[in-house]
Amino acid sequence: MDRKRLQRLLEDVRRGKRSVGAALDELRDLPYEDLGYAKIDHHRSLRQGIPEVIFAQGKTRAQILEIADRLAAGGHDVLVTRIDREDADALAKRLTGIQYSERGRIAWRKVGRKPGALGRVLVISAGTADQPVAEEAAITAECASCDVERLYDVGVSGLHRLFDQGQRIHAADVVIVVAGMEGALPSVVAGWIEQPVIAVPTSIGYGASFGGLAALLAMLNSCAAGTTVVNIDNGFGAAIAAVRILRRKTSKASRR
Amino acid sequence: MDRKRLQRLLEDVRRGKRSVGAALDELRDLPYEDLGYAKIDHHRSLRQGIPEVIFAQGKTRAQILEIADRLAAGGHDVLVTRIDREDADALAKRLTGIQYSERGRIAWRKVGRKPGALGRVLVISAGTADQPVAEEAAITAECASCDVERLYDVGVSGLHRLFDQGQRIHAADVVIVVAGMEGALPSVVAGWIEQPVIAVPTSIGYGASFGGLAALLAMLNSCAAGTTVVNIDNGFGAAIAAVRILRRKTSKASRR
Amino acid sequence: MDRKRLQRLLEDVRRGKRSVGAALDELRDLPYEDLGYAKIDHHRSLRQGIPEVIFAQGKTRAQILEIADRLAAGGHDVLVTRIDREDADALAKRLTGIQYSERGRIAWRKVGRKPGALGRVLVISAGTADQPVAEEAAITAECASCDVERLYDVGVSGLHRLFDQGQRIHAADVVIVVAGMEGALPSVVAGWIEQPVIAVPTSIGYGASFGGLAALLAMLNSCAAGTTVVNIDNGFGAAIAAVRILRRKTSKASRR
Amino acid sequence: MDRKRLQRLLEDVRRGKRSVGAALDELRDLPYEDLGYAKIDHHRSLRQGIPEVIFAQGKTRAQILEIADRLAAGGHDVLVTRIDREDADALAKRLTGIQYSERGRIAWRKVGRKPGALGRVLVISAGTADQPVAEEAAITAECASCDVERLYDVGVSGLHRLFDQGQRIHAADVVIVVAGMEGALPSVVAGWIEQPVIAVPTSIGYGASFGGLAALLAMLNSCAAGTTVVNIDNGFGAAIAAVRILRRKTSKASRR
Amino acid sequence: MDRKRLQRLLEDVRRGKRSVGAALDELRDLPYEDLGYAKIDHHRSLRQGIPEVIFAQGKTRAQILEIADRLAAGGHDVLVTRIDREDADALAKRLTGIQYSERGRIAWRKVGRKPGALGRVLVISAGTADQPVAEEAAITAECASCDVERLYDVGVSGLHRLFDQGQRIHAADVVIVVAGMEGALPSVVAGWIEQPVIAVPTSIGYGASFGGLAALLAMLNSCAAGTTVVNIDNGFGAAIAAVRILRRKTSKASRR
Amino acid sequence: MDRKRLQRLLEDVRRGKRSVGAALDELRDLPYEDLGYAKIDHHRSLRQGIPEVIFAQGKTRAQILEIADRLAAGGHDVLVTRIDREDADALAKRLTGIQYSERGRIAWRKVGRKPGALGRVLVISAGTADQPVAEEAAITAECASCDVERLYDVGVSGLHRLFDQGQRIHAADVVIVVAGMEGALPSVVAGWIEQPVIAVPTSIGYGASFGGLAALLAMLNSCAAGTTVVNIDNGFGAAIAAVRILRRKTSKASRR
Amino acid sequence: MDRKRLQRLLEDVRRGKRSVGAALDELRDLPYEDLGYAKIDHHRSLRQGIPEVIFAQGKTRAQILEIADRLAAGGHDVLVTRIDREDADALAKRLTGIQYSERGRIAWRKVGRKPGALGRVLVISAGTADQPVAEEAAITAECASCDVERLYDVGVSGLHRLFDQGQRIHAADVVIVVAGMEGALPSVVAGWIEQPVIAVPTSIGYGASFGGLAALLAMLNSCAAGTTVVNIDNGFGAAIAAVRILRRKTSKASRR
Amino acid sequence: MDRKRLQRLLEDVRRGKRSVGAALDELRDLPYEDLGYAKIDHHRSLRQGIPEVIFAQGKTRAQILEIADRLAAGGHDVLVTRIDREDADALAKRLTGIQYSERGRIAWRKVGRKPGALGRVLVISAGTADQPVAEEAAITAECASCDVERLYDVGVSGLHRLFDQGQRIHAADVVIVVAGMEGALPSVVAGWIEQPVIAVPTSIGYGASFGGLAALLAMLNSCAAGTTVVNIDNGFGAAIAAVRILRRKTSKASRR
Repeated sequence: MDRKRLQRLLEDVRRGKRSVGAALDELRDLPYEDLGYAKIDHHRSLRQGIPEVIFAQGKTRAQILEIADRLAAGGHDVLVTRIDREDADALAKRLTGIQYSERGRIAWRKVGRKPGALGRVLVISAGTADQPVAEEAAITAECASCDVERLYDVGVSGLHRLFDQGQRIHAADVVIVVAGMEGALPSVVAGWIEQPVIAVPTSIGYGASFGGLAALLAMLNSCAAGTTVVNIDNGFGAAIAAVRILRRKTSKASRR
Repeated sequence: MDRKRLQRLLEDVRRGKRSVGAALDELRDLPYEDLGYAKIDHHRSLRQGIPEVIFAQGKTRAQILEIADRLAAGGHDVLVTRIDREDADALAKRLTGIQYSERGRIAWRKVGRKPGALGRVLVISAGTADQPVAEEAAITAECASCDVERLYDVGVSGLHRLFDQGQRIHAADVVIVVAGMEGALPSVVAGWIEQPVIAVPTSIGYGASFGGLAALLAMLNSCAAGTTVVNIDNGFGAAIAAVRILRRKTSKASRR
Repeated sequence: MDRKRLQRLLEDVRRGKRSVGAALDELRDLPYEDLGYAKIDHHRSLRQGIPEVIFAQGKTRAQILEIADRLAAGGHDVLVTRIDREDADALAKRLTGIQYSERGRIAWRKVGRKPGALGRVLVISAGTADQPVAEEAAITAECASCDVERLYDVGVSGLHRLFDQGQRIHAADVVIVVAGMEGALPSVVAGWIEQPVIAVPTSIGYGASFGGLAALLAMLNSCAAGTTVVNIDNGFGAAIAAVRILRRKTSKASRR
Repeated sequence: MDRKRLQRLLEDVRRGKRSVGAALDELRDLPYEDLGYAKIDHHRSLRQGIPEVIFAQGKTRAQILEIADRLAAGGHDVLVTRIDREDADALAKRLTGIQYSERGRIAWRKVGRKPGALGRVLVISAGTADQPVAEEAAITAECASCDVERLYDVGVSGLHRLFDQGQRIHAADVVIVVAGMEGALPSVVAGWIEQPVIAVPTSIGYGASFGGLAALLAMLNSCAAGTTVVNIDNGFGAAIAAVRILRRKTSKASRR
Repeated sequence: MDRKRLQRLLEDVRRGKRSVGAALDELRDLPYEDLGYAKIDHHRSLRQGIPEVIFAQGKTRAQILEIADRLAAGGHDVLVTRIDREDADALAKRLTGIQYSERGRIAWRKVGRKPGALGRVLVISAGTADQPVAEEAAITAECASCDVERLYDVGVSGLHRLFDQGQRIHAADVVIVVAGMEGALPSVVAGWIEQPVIAVPTSIGYGASFGGLAALLAMLNSCAAGTTVVNIDNGFGAAIAAVRILRRKTSKASRR
Repeated sequence: MDRKRLQRLLEDVRRGKRSVGAALDELRDLPYEDLGYAKIDHHRSLRQGIPEVIFAQGKTRAQILEIADRLAAGGHDVLVTRIDREDADALAKRLTGIQYSERGRIAWRKVGRKPGALGRVLVISAGTADQPVAEEAAITAECASCDVERLYDVGVSGLHRLFDQGQRIHAADVVIVVAGMEGALPSVVAGWIEQPVIAVPTSIGYGASFGGLAALLAMLNSCAAGTTVVNIDNGFGAAIAAVRILRRKTSKASRR
Repeated sequence: MDRKRLQRLLEDVRRGKRSVGAALDELRDLPYEDLGYAKIDHHRSLRQGIPEVIFAQGKTRAQILEIADRLAAGGHDVLVTRIDREDADALAKRLTGIQYSERGRIAWRKVGRKPGALGRVLVISAGTADQPVAEEAAITAECASCDVERLYDVGVSGLHRLFDQGQRIHAADVVIVVAGMEGALPSVVAGWIEQPVIAVPTSIGYGASFGGLAALLAMLNSCAAGTTVVNIDNGFGAAIAAVRILRRKTSKASRR
Repeated sequence: MDRKRLQRLLEDVRRGKRSVGAALDELRDLPYEDLGYAKIDHHRSLRQGIPEVIFAQGKTRAQILEIADRLAAGGHDVLVTRIDREDADALAKRLTGIQYSERGRIAWRKVGRKPGALGRVLVISAGTADQPVAEEAAITAECASCDVERLYDVGVSGLHRLFDQGQRIHAADVVIVVAGMEGALPSVVAGWIEQPVIAVPTSIGYGASFGGLAALLAMLNSCAAGTTVVNIDNGFGAAIAAVRILRRKTSKASRR
């Protein structure tokens, strides 16, 4: 997995700097911390450039707080998604500097890097009700050091509201398009621009939207080539996909 | 069902012009012709303004020919949908004046009314592969005395091709929008214009299009209010819906 | 989109009445009002004959009230669908003249046009439990200046209750048929009459109704040609579809 | 399972007429014949009043012929469903007196009982394309000694064709209603009459019929209480259900 | 629908006993009572032998009470399904003699006919959790004058509990089999006995039971020929299907 | 079912030790206890090595307590799955020695056999939120006398956490792998080891997880041959499957 | 993955027996052979006790033959599933000793181990049409050195055919139950016996069987605890699951 | 859409260089060529950096050839996906220099840019049968001037084949992962590396793979954050998504 470290380890063994047992131990002693019910991966930010994120849904409050504690203790940023106000309040009492977005259901505390270093992410949403998902994407991207712009309520039933914003749209490095109901907006955007478009279906709708299935299928079948899709309501995942794109660009550029 | 005819019948009974038995007979002797495997409804064109149409799929060639024969004998137009070339050739041998569209899989022979009397129907299709369904709609509407315009291959991945045709679009009385894959086009059209929009999902696509389900769900969830939808690949039904709209308008206007 | 306005704009530029920059600004300055989380389209009633409607589901009360405020300030009708009693009460405190239907979950306040100008819409419902959706359709159509008749609880398990009402049914310009469970009523109605029939499946049912899927599929597969369908429980959309039909007729007639 | 036979067996053992081993053997020696790939149940007609029927789909021609041979050798009727013409021809060469319906895809040879002994079954079908399934039901019922009437092509888009046949419908003991597409006909029939109604959805349709799913769901959600449903295209099963109903009636009556 | 009444009506018109207008009125004046939101069909018990039943789900308490009132006033039995305790208590305050089963969620009050006149219905259920549906079937059948036996908790994971009850099973005229989860019990029962078997899938289960879909599909695909199926959790419908079977038998027998 | 017992019974009848009537009685008197709403199978632990287990979901508290009482009175272990805290508290008041796991929603009381006699079961779970299902499996297996190891939070997004535990994994006799979301973990484990792998999909996830459907389908389509699957969230079933495997091994070994 | 080999490798490096580069090479040189389009895993039989099996579906004939060649060259058994007669004939020309089962669509050639070493597998199938899947399971198990018994055509519509075979059933170590349609047979078997039961749904059926979905869901929802399930038609996977169970037992026993 | 061109146009109008009519004409005269059934977008490569691609499925041969002709005449690359050998042969006769991949079902002819200019795309596939989709992706990316590496047959059932290729994997700029069946491979890859991962589900599999649905759902639910997904079998779309990512990087870098 980490070829250089493995190579160094083997060199050390060859040179007698480490015993075989120690080498085996180190291989076992992988960079995570075991809480029993959870294994915290402190080195993920090294491996993927993304700190370990706490997905609160399905976890008890005690678990959320303990994992957050350990991440904070490790000097990492803290980012908790799908967290309700009560749990966020408890978290804010435990750790200083926690911010909370009720619409986006995200709590976070940033250490380190200044915003905007990676590039510009534009988050477009189709309807007012899609905003929670859009905010989850926007705040996650901000926490991962992106410059984030928001363009909300520009659905396909009145496309002049979208086409009016060409300048902002063309200035973005990556565009995240959030839409429920018929999920048509990503196709329109991706048919218009050349940048990467990440489509996020939302569960907004009723009846034959089937919890976001209609929007999801529409996005997967987009006739605008090169549109990619994440799970329904997965604003977080879209932001991380954008970060993967921007980090690569930045890291390669800096290598030149 | 036919109040006037029933009233006349009752009057005749009251006046002794008809016996009770004859009245019962006439009530039984409803206006269809029984071929055993099919009951031809000769009076549908009176009742609904649409001649009985032969849906060829699932019928044997012999059945298609016999039903067509009887309709022709009744002085009606003949319109056969979902008919393949072999059956259409056989039909053309049986009845003179049969026309056939291989793309639209429709065979027809018109008697009477001049085209364009009802109003203008615009058929828009998203992709080249959607044409068979679009043609089924267009030819059906022409057979039902509509003025039909076609605007093909104007999908959402390049909307300038659509917006460029504003004049033709605004001139239509009813707009039929045919699209497969993500089915986004009807939302864009219906968000732009004020006329009735009938959306036809097609089975064009692959993978998560699930035989047109993706397009169907998208159209049902359209954020452009007032979009109505027919079955997947049902170009015929869309045309008849347009005829229902236009006939009402015409008939009411003529009554004034 | 608005060819005449564009033409005028270009003329102004040609004549030097407007600078290029001002023209660009005006093109950007499209006729909506930006609240950040929502973009209110004040000119939709010009473009589509339907005022912007507030779909309350998924919006906070503060958002509902602010959007309603702005619409009222713009001199528009206010129509809020899927709104519960608490939010409707709050709305009634903010704006005078608000009416509320708890069954239909609609709140509205009309300015202007007298009822009945557009034509007659008949709303038929199959069962008592389908009434909320039927009322959403009926009240929306009334707000859009239609003459509305209601014919409720005439499901297919006792068709004599329906056939008994032939006169009222034949007098309608557009018929909206609302049904849950097996969704068979629109087929029966559309097989009987010649007018446009808009079918609205409802989520009424249990078990294999799968939230209205059974009724939706039945309506899409109707053997009565020319039936069109809207989303499950979408009484609002059916009414707007009726308005599209009736407005076209009226506007064309008035043009003669 | 067969209490009397078990009682007799136990009596024989008690009286020393049979050894324990022989009794065990007899219990093992159940009334079927083992062909290795199939176990023919010669006594099913005793147990259920229905001879073992060969469902040809998925069986090789050799298997069909051998099973038919054994049934014939056992003096039973032969009834083969879902059999194509080639296999039926081969069967007719093997056994004398085989009849074949290509539409219904059934081959049969009756021994014994005169038709009509059990009661009257009415088979109603909605469209011409539904006939194969209707014929499968009708011929199966005839083979099981029912009096069968057929009433075809009376779908809900023209209900006068159905209501016209009240006398024949009210004379039936059991009514089988076969319909594809929206599957509404059983609801209309069951809402009108008091007899048992067995609904058979067919795979006739396209698009959102999803291979008969639409019709199946509609029938399961029928608002006409007491409608029962069998599998898509299962004309055979509907006929056997009718036989179960009629046999019970007959057997009880004869017991009085 | 009612040929004799129609004949009499026509005779009266012919003889001058009724004017044409009065005849038309009478045709319109069909035998139901219009409450606006509901049309009560007082003559259904004549037409189908089943009194109009109130399905409480989706109705307001006021509606339930008013409809029950009118049925009682018409001298009919009152039977309310899917009614919770609060509404049942209110009903009991309005009408004397109301009985309520909380498990079965049914309230009823019987007038007239003595139990057991029609025949014997056996209700079998697979698991303890299936009892509410089984009770809905059992009580409905009792209200419709059937002799009802219950055999509960005899699922396929321990078939000796079922096979042990052969005598009771073979004594029934109609067998209703209620099962959730894998829905296998009806196949086992129908493969064993010759009587009509009505299978009722329940929503009991979790995960891949998908709200009863697994049981429903299993029952539709039963390899025991002649099994018929009703909607998920539809104990009421199963009972009415049994009544249709038993009434026919009884009425025919009495005609002899 | 129980050949020896049947043989003995027949012998007794032959020898005159039992009358035919008594034999019939005994056949009827099968080893379960009838509570009306439930039939307790006291001999299941003889037949299957698994005591009857109470699935609490869908049962009333009174039913749970009474069944538990009877099992305890019969000297059996008590194991109640899907039981919430309130019912578990009531159970603990009724029976001494009840233990309860809130996460696993299981209550139990063991009599007899010492732990670990059967073999070693390893329960692996992918995420923290999958623990309730994992605990249901682990505790059930412990109650059935298995030696249980737990390895939690080792999902495929960081496989080093899994590969690090090779020794513990290879030491297990049976491995149960619990995973929600994409359900990939069982494929990775089964591709790595030679032991039986039982995959348990969980309902953990959101959006296109569709209540665990995504994980279920992934596990059924595993490219690692020989993976078997149980229902979504069915930790209990997985444990019993493991017991079936281990009991067979043990019983055969002891027979040697 | 292979701790001992890794340990040895590290020891060699420590002792200078291998250079770091050579160690890295060996780690890369994992035990598979790269054909470009396929990577043959020669050591899988070491790792999992199952030789690499060729799944022919989706592979060209040339690919099948080349992979088989390499496996044979490596001294392994050859087992090809889902292979049609033409490809099997080509294979038989290439390699001597190939056997082919047209029903099971399997071709194989065994080297080495004598049959029956691992234990006894009983393959039960519900209907004649399920045999291809049952044969795929049976032949695979035979190739993997199991003793295989077959019990075919014992579906739940006539359970006496099953219960009659108790002795053979109880003698098996693992039972594979293959069933299409309603998929009820595994529940009946698993409710009766104590051994591991592996359920294989088949795609046999029509209509609402939805390609085996009905059987699959039934098996996943089995009320007989501890039933495990593999993919639809996956006879091969069921056999490998049985082998995993039997190998573990054997290997542990031999370790004692 | 093209702000600069619009600005220039307005300037020309202002300066009197163009009449208003001519400006309107030019706006209408958008950069596509109208063949009636298709509108070729010659400027897409300017707008999106991707030449117009011909999706052959659903088009007649004549249409494919004519569109290809026009693209070639416009000096563009020709790329035709989902094209079978016969149509490709016909294309090769029409245009010189056509290459064809039968596995990938792609035909192409490149003009201009040298390979590798954009960056490195790694295409990983899980099984041999997934290669057609992988090749569609690889060849498309090559046509769009990417450097493409292929890593095939490295599915999760033997992950050592994947982990062995760390160096090649870490060297890629974008990774496309193609997998059918359980679709687990993208999660494993994305959990390991930091680059953008585009997951392509394939329809490879059978039974509960439901045409690729299982793989699609697994990928959408990936626990490895930032994985994005395209439609089933959409190798082309994945390649274009990669091109969007790489072009942005390149164009921004060149702007510096």
